[in-house]
Amino acid sequence: MKLKEFAKQLGLSPTTVSRALSGYPEVSEKTRKRVAEEAVRLGYRPNINAVRLVTGRAGAIGVVMGRNEFQFSEFMSGMAERLDSEDIDILVSPVADHDMKAELQLYSRLATSGRVDAVIIHSPKPNDERILLLHKLGIPFLVHGRSETNVPHAWLDIDNEGAIRRATSHLLDLGHRRIALINGRDGLTFTLHRDKGYREALEQRGLPFDPRLVTHGQFTDEIGFRSARSFLEQSPRPTAFVAGSMMTALGVYRAVRSVGLVVGKDISVIAHDDVFPYLTADNMVPSLSTSRSSLRAAGARSADLTLQLLTGRPATEIHELWPVELILRESTGPAPEA
Amino acid sequence: MKLKEFAKQLGLSPTTVSRALSGYPEVSEKTRKRVAEEAVRLGYRPNINAVRLVTGRAGAIGVVMGRNEFQFSEFMSGMAERLDSEDIDILVSPVADHDMKAELQLYSRLATSGRVDAVIIHSPKPNDERILLLHKLGIPFLVHGRSETNVPHAWLDIDNEGAIRRATSHLLDLGHRRIALINGRDGLTFTLHRDKGYREALEQRGLPFDPRLVTHGQFTDEIGFRSARSFLEQSPRPTAFVAGSMMTALGVYRAVRSVGLVVGKDISVIAHDDVFPYLTADNMVPSLSTSRSSLRAAGARSADLTLQLLTGRPATEIHELWPVELILRESTGPAPEA
Repeated sequence: MKLKEFAKQLGLSPTTVSRALSGYPEVSEKTRKRVAEEAVRLGYRPNINAVRLVTGRAGAIGVVMGRNEFQFSEFMSGMAERLDSEDIDILVSPVADHDMKAELQLYSRLATSGRVDAVIIHSPKPNDERILLLHKLGIPFLVHGRSETNVPHAWLDIDNEGAIRRATSHLLDLGHRRIALINGRDGLTFTLHRDKGYREALEQRGLPFDPRLVTHGQFTDEIGFRSARSFLEQSPRPTAFVAGSMMTALGVYRAVRSVGLVVGKDISVIAHDDVFPYLTADNMVPSLSTSRSSLRAAGARSADLTLQLLTGRPATEIHELWPVELILRESTGPAPEA
Repeated sequence: MKLKEFAKQLGLSPTTVSRALSGYPEVSEKTRKRVAEEAVRLGYRPNINAVRLVTGRAGAIGVVMGRNEFQFSEFMSGMAERLDSEDIDILVSPVADHDMKAELQLYSRLATSGRVDAVIIHSPKPNDERILLLHKLGIPFLVHGRSETNVPHAWLDIDNEGAIRRATSHLLDLGHRRIALINGRDGLTFTLHRDKGYREALEQRGLPFDPRLVTHGQFTDEIGFRSARSFLEQSPRPTAFVAGSMMTALGVYRAVRSVGLVVGKDISVIAHDDVFPYLTADNMVPSLSTSRSSLRAAGARSADLTLQLLTGRPATEIHELWPVELILRESTGPAPEA
């Protein structure tokens, strides 16, 4: 049965039928339900490409995936949880890590092809070209993270600045004075916010900032290990570490052990935790103190806010900043006597 | 400009133009190139939904993602690497973990909606309902893993049986006699193959199989830790572990340390490694001996084989079994004297 014929039997326009089947709630719940029931009863199976052509809706939200993002699965799982009941797909477009030119071309293609109704972008910079382009292209988008770009845009972010300020302040409260920060990739907003939180905690005590105690890089066990080893060779060495991720923390633990020191006694560690089901801070030895925020929850909420964008909520109203918890466990303790 | 008009200017049929733009290589390279160049020159921007309706091609490969799969990013990154240059999308459909009914409904929807041209399925069972259904639906599919289902199907798998047989044999060569296996989820083909490899290694020496030395479960640090702790309480306790994943191995290392024993001296460990960029066997302390196979390479090859399916290579010809390397590092050593 063709769309036209099916619509005629229901006494509705093909456009209304297509909209009812396309997953976005612009048709009344009653009509959506009736169309769905009649489709089953009459054996009508819509070709989604026809539906999309009629409605101008793709029924998909696009996300761009870099190559080395172990965090990606968690965010996607969260999106999936929210979109499960909506019959809306997630379209994943690959780009090489940090290839901004390729990513920009990709958005242009997505915008003109009608493949997605909206996109979610990650890890923005303060002045992010992607935001300017997406705004120009007129494609609805949500930023996971923040940017200082003038263009109005919807965003969801966690309070990275506050998280690292609190973590650093807590270590200062414990008497630590040389605290090393193993931060994320340079130039990204969340990295800058974390750097800022670190400096603020020092400033609040009138302590000087020592650039030799901060490094930037990807969130891997290897970079965590190398950075921590290099810090531990300094004299005097740091007595505490703030690590950017759980993987970084694994490397820090390893480095501390490798020089015969004990985490939680000689060296305190606080790491940021995105809450992974397969690797938990509670289970590390000693258990790891963390600033904690669920990437999965952020994925679910990002999907939700994107749906709100698509049903007309203005982007300028969609600004969510999530606080980050500080969870103290065994990896943090008083600074050792000098 | 509409498709019809653009095609007319090129002296081609709209179908040929659409095919040339749809990403699959059924139109000659020369024509594809000409169409692409003319599209740029004349400012023709195809609406992908129109192209799809004309060609009957979705320009997307579907994958189903469970909720707790940290390995997923690696496989996807591999697919992405292969599809990057093809202008073919990856459509990710979420399902709750182990909800077979939901997954089957999803494939039915994908098949009738025309959203994807093919799907890739993961972690099959020996008698997998998904394979029967996909075959019935007539949607091209590739199985990542293996099944004993009678229905002909394309697959790519690694030699799980051989990998665990070699790992276990090596531990037996080192004099270990009580070797514990922390395997994957029960009932999946790869888990059964690994169980089989473990038993074969014992049989080859005429050693008895002790079911108390094998557990099954998800690949998490927590399950690795709990299983290893429970094994270490046995008397006599095992002197070696074969762990199903890197996360499992993290838990095993922790458990061994927690009872005051030393990995590589008191207890040997070999784990299966999918080759993650953020957590490497070389970097563990002691460095971890592994059976190694790249999930990223499997993702890239799976995408490639799926494209071959779509250009007419028979599913019955697409059967690839990859050998698994055994990489010996510091976590394995001679069995301690009894």
